[in-house]
Parts: sequence; C-alpha cells; structure tokens
Amino acid sequence: MNKAAVDYTLYLVTDRKQLGNRDLAESIEQAIQGGVTLVQLREKSVSTKEFLQLAEKVKEITSRYQIPLIINDRLDIALAIDADGLHVGQDDLPMVKARELLGPDKIIGVSASTLEEALLAEQQGADYLGVGAIFTTATKTDATDVSLKQLEVIKHSVSIPVVAIGGIGTTNLPLVRAAGVDGVSVVSAILGQENIYSAAMELKKILSF
Amino acid sequence: MNKAAVDYTLYLVTDRKQLGNRDLAESIEQAIQGGVTLVQLREKSVSTKEFLQLAEKVKEITSRYQIPLIINDRLDIALAIDADGLHVGQDDLPMVKARELLGPDKIIGVSASTLEEALLAEQQGADYLGVGAIFTTATKTDATDVSLKQLEVIKHSVSIPVVAIGGIGTTNLPLVRAAGVDGVSVVSAILGQENIYSAAMELKKILSF
Repeated sequence: MNKAAVDYTLYLVTDRKQLGNRDLAESIEQAIQGGVTLVQLREKSVSTKEFLQLAEKVKEITSRYQIPLIINDRLDIALAIDADGLHVGQDDLPMVKARELLGPDKIIGVSASTLEEALLAEQQGADYLGVGAIFTTATKTDATDVSLKQLEVIKHSVSIPVVAIGGIGTTNLPLVRAAGVDGVSVVSAILGQENIYSAAMELKKILSF
Repeated sequence: MNKAAVDYTLYLVTDRKQLGNRDLAESIEQAIQGGVTLVQLREKSVSTKEFLQLAEKVKEITSRYQIPLIINDRLDIALAIDADGLHVGQDDLPMVKARELLGPDKIIGVSASTLEEALLAEQQGADYLGVGAIFTTATKTDATDVSLKQLEVIKHSVSIPVVAIGGIGTTNLPLVRAAGVDGVSVVSAILGQENIYSAAMELKKILSF
C-alpha cells in the first residue's frame, strides 16, 4: 500500500450497534460498493479472539476491493492481521509508541479535537487526523465538540490530511466540505441506514460535486 | 530473562476490584515483598492509555525485584512496555499468532480447562499452562471447572509447567499441591486480604513445606 495515495474522501467507521441484525462484514462490503474509500474497524465490547476473527473477515473484503483497512485502538489486532493502519484516540496508545511498534509504512491516524492535539500528532508523525465531533453524535459520547470554524483552523494549520467526524450526513455534508477537509468520516449516515449501498452512494455523490 | 529459570510457585494475577481504595502498584509491591514469584497484570475495563500507564508503573516495580511481568490478553500492551510475557485465554489471541508476534524469547502462557486444550497449547509452543478454575471463584465467572483429578491428569500429560488457578487460598492449597503442580495462581487470597504482604507470606510458607 502506498500511503501517499490513500483516498480519505468517504471514510467509514464501523459500529455494530447501528446494524441491528445485519452482518457487519456484509454491510461493509455494501458500503464499499456504494463508494466508501477507507474502512476503520472499531470494536469496543468483544473479546480479542472475536475482534481478530472479524478483522480477518473484513480484511478479505477490503483487500478484494483494494480499500485500506484501519483498526481502531488495538495495535495487537492491527499486527495480527497485518492491517494497513491503526487509528488512535487520545485515550489509546500514544502516537509515538504506535509508530515505534508499527513501523514507518503503516498508516497511523490520530483523533484530535483541539489545534494543540492536531499539531502534536502531526509533529509526532501521524499520517492523518480525525477531527471532531463536528455535530452531535449518539455513537461516541466521549468526543469533544469542534466547531466548523475550529475545523477550518486545524485544516489550515497542518499539512497532513484532515478527516472530519461526528454526526455528518447528507444534510450537513456541504457545510463540512466548505471547511476544506480531505474527507469525512461517517458511521450512522451509512451503517444506520436501511439501504447501506444507496446511503454510501448518496454521500459519495454529494462529495463529488 | 531466562525463560527456563522462571519460578511459577506463587503467581499473582491482578484484579483491581479486590483492592477497594488501595493502589494497585503498591499492592503488587507488597505482594512481591511477601513472596510472589511472578505477576500477571489483568485489566479488562480501562482504556488502552490507562492500561499502558499502569503497566509501565508495574514494570518498574517487577524489574526492581527481578520478578517476571506477564500481561493478560493484550499483546499491544506487552509489546509497548516490553513485558516478559503474555497470558492468553481461550477467547484471546491464538497461541500461534501470539508467538509469531512476540518471538521465541517471551513467556507465553495459555489458559486451559481441558486436557485437549492443554495438549494443544503445549504443542503450539506455550511456555506454561494456567489450569482452572479448580475451586469456585468470584473473580472470573467465565472459567470452566476443573477437578483436582483432571488437574493431576493434565499435569502428568504435559512437560511444561502447570499453574493451578481458581479459588485457591490457604485452606485448600495443600490439596492443589498434592496434584503436583508447579505453582498456584492467586487473586483474592492475596489482593482481597487486608494485609497483602502477610497474605502472600502465609501462602509462600504453606508452599515451602
């Protein structure tokens, strides 16, 4: 994988709670077919074995479509399946430690909700930033709010790609794009919709205008 | 660390719920001073960052006393602090994957509650087995029961060290020793006691008879 060529446009972060009885791996495949350019597998309440098995299954799909697969938080899982990268929040492994253990070739993304966090992450070698929460979200209640103005300031202060996250959907997507970000991260706007394929396609269409 | 020289006699597995308001790192130090020969850090409900910070703190202590430190389940934490080893349960990373990622020099222990699991773990290169639960325990409700007879069968069927775990304390310790195990793993019999140092010393005394 060529890190410089990664397309951050429509970045799917998983949340199995959005899916009801639907299968996570199948839902990810539908989202990719609809236009998702990057997948982050995020699991907080399963055993390591279950996370690993799911990650192996998802990697088969993302590899088939040549979409990068990023693991949230768990470097052990990222290493075990040789994922394309790791995403760390402020309560996860420190960026520097993650880079030391993963090496220079893997994508490492960092969650940032302030300019300070963003600048530090860039300085420490992050490949991209996940900035949010931009809008109110039911998925991640521990995220600090970031205004569209702050998002714009962060985007103009760093040279690595910035992906906006938090409550982004079809209606507010134009506002986020106006901030000049490299991509948007979505959870419920894709996985919480009845037709996952169409939902991803609709977002992709708005992003391509 | 010389893997062959590891002393499994009195193996402490941590559980912060046993401690009330007492500090985990301080409690571990008291247990070591009382005679604990090995420490396994087990955390199931903290963030990766918190687990890492705690593990770094505990490693300072175990290094000072030259006691091996084993991390439960989380290979990312084990790698991040360069721990002496990893303990995996049947719901954690598979033994083979853990060995592949940790290399030959690290201690890897596997939980086994059947002869089949024990033989497989040995064959896959486990350094020791944690066999239990021998007695009823409030700490780990997902553990399958293993009789003293089964424990003895497992001990005689493998050539790697066998550590018995589950509800072991001063009163039933002689029964477990009679099964010929290499060591006992304790949680509440040390960390759940008012005087951690004395509790470890008392167990060590019984073990030395």
